[in-house]
Order: sequence, then structure tokens, then C-alpha cells
Amino acid sequence: MRYLHTMVRVTDLNASLDFYVNKLGLKETRRIENKGGRFTLVFVAPPENPDAEVELTYNWDPESYTGGRNFGHLAYAVDDIYAVCQRLKDKGVTINRPPRDGRMAFVRSPDNISIELLQKGAALPPAEPWASMPNTGVW
Amino acid sequence: MRYLHTMVRVTDLNASLDFYVNKLGLKETRRIENKGGRFTLVFVAPPENPDAEVELTYNWDPESYTGGRNFGHLAYAVDDIYAVCQRLKDKGVTINRPPRDGRMAFVRSPDNISIELLQKGAALPPAEPWASMPNTGVW
Repeated sequence: MRYLHTMVRVTDLNASLDFYVNKLGLKETRRIENKGGRFTLVFVAPPENPDAEVELTYNWDPESYTGGRNFGHLAYAVDDIYAVCQRLKDKGVTINRPPRDGRMAFVRSPDNISIELLQKGAALPPAEPWASMPNTGVW
Repeated sequence: MRYLHTMVRVTDLNASLDFYVNKLGLKETRRIENKGGRFTLVFVAPPENPDAEVELTYNWDPESYTGGRNFGHLAYAVDDIYAVCQRLKDKGVTINRPPRDGRMAFVRSPDNISIELLQKGAALPPAEPWASMPNTGVW
């Protein structure tokens, strides 16, 4: 038995690819367009384990997607949590839970999927602007 | 950047472990009890890629978890989709989308997390009782 992917639905494929690829740093691994079913599936994955995909399901007929509490978040380990959060912040992403501890941060996708970022290995020394940055919203 | 886990919240830890471990076939990889925070985290993962975990978050103070459409499902590849569905069925799990095509099935966790099962490699030849089994509910 082998883990393949976590599927999430997206209301705006371009906004989601901008978030997951350009901002978060995942790579597009493959794409399936189904004209009959009127949907597009785009798979994205982290460079280190490209087999662990996220399947972005984009239905061509508009739907609005709300969240539920049974799903929590997707979690990724990163080499430098400050560098990733800085890149996200510079590109306009709210850091809902800044890495005040040099170890853990949370952001949200355009469809409110919560993403946890964890520093690989030991926590980094506390550093500004993160150390004094308050939380924003929930994650 | 490396995928770590998908976190889901569970209302009944024993019922969830029964589903994810005894019925679905994942293995418990580690467990964290936090008395101060009044929560237990149990990580489960498939034998083939135990680094791709699901984090089951159990909050000791009762909460009710509903689902949302932004999260879709977790997907696993299996060696024999009929054998897995038979085991699930024998243990009382509803096969919401039976593997009529020998290739794909959907079931749900006790907290309504949708789980996709995909046959590894080529689809199996159609076989009963699956080939003529109708869908149940949504997934």
C-alpha cells in the first residue's frame, strides 16, 4: 500500500498554481484535461519526494468551496523556514502563524487549505521580523 | 522541500485507529500525548512509504467535525483492490464507490474523510460482487 496524493478542489486554477508553485515552491508533475467531464487535474509535489503529490481539481463550472474541521492541513519540511516565509510574504501571502520559534509556520491556500511549514532538523535561532510578528486569523 | 503529512481531526481515536489501521491497512508510526494541551497525535502511514504520514489529531475535549468541499480525499495505491475492498466490507465499512472497473474505489473514515483506493498497474478484470454493486452516498 502506497500513499499517492491528497486531493483538494480549487476555484481558480491560475491562482492556485501561483500559490502552490510560484509561492510555496512545489513543482507541477503532470496535468490531465478532461473536456467531457469539464475538469482539469494538476498534480504538484515537492522536489524532494515528487511521488507525494497534491492533486488540484479544477471544475470548469464554477463552484464555491468551503472548509470543514475534519481536514486539518498539509505539512511540508523546509530547509530554511525564514526564507520560505519571506518569499511567501514578499509575494503577498499572509503568514497566519509566523515562525516565531524558528520551527513552525502556517499559511493558507487561496481556497483556505491550511499548510504547515516545519523547519528541518533543529529550530533556527529566533529572528525578526518573525519573532515579534502576531498571528493573523486561524489556521 | 519535502512532504510530511496530511492532518485530519478525529472525534473517536479508537474508532479511527480501527479504520485506518485494522481496516484500511496503514501502520501506526508514532504517537504524541500532550497532557497540557489535552490532545493526542497518532501518525499512521502505508508500509511502502512510511514517511508519507497521516496525522490523526484527537482533542480530548469533545468536538464535532464536519467536512468541507475544499478538501477532496486521500489516495492510496493498493496491490489488489478487490482484496482491500473485501477486507473493508467484511469489517463493516461501506464501499461508497465500489471498484466496478477493477481500478478505483472510495470509502470514508469515521469522520467522513474520503479515501480513494487505486489499483496498482493495469485494472483488474471485472469481478463480482463489485461489478454490479451500486454506489452508496457520496465521496
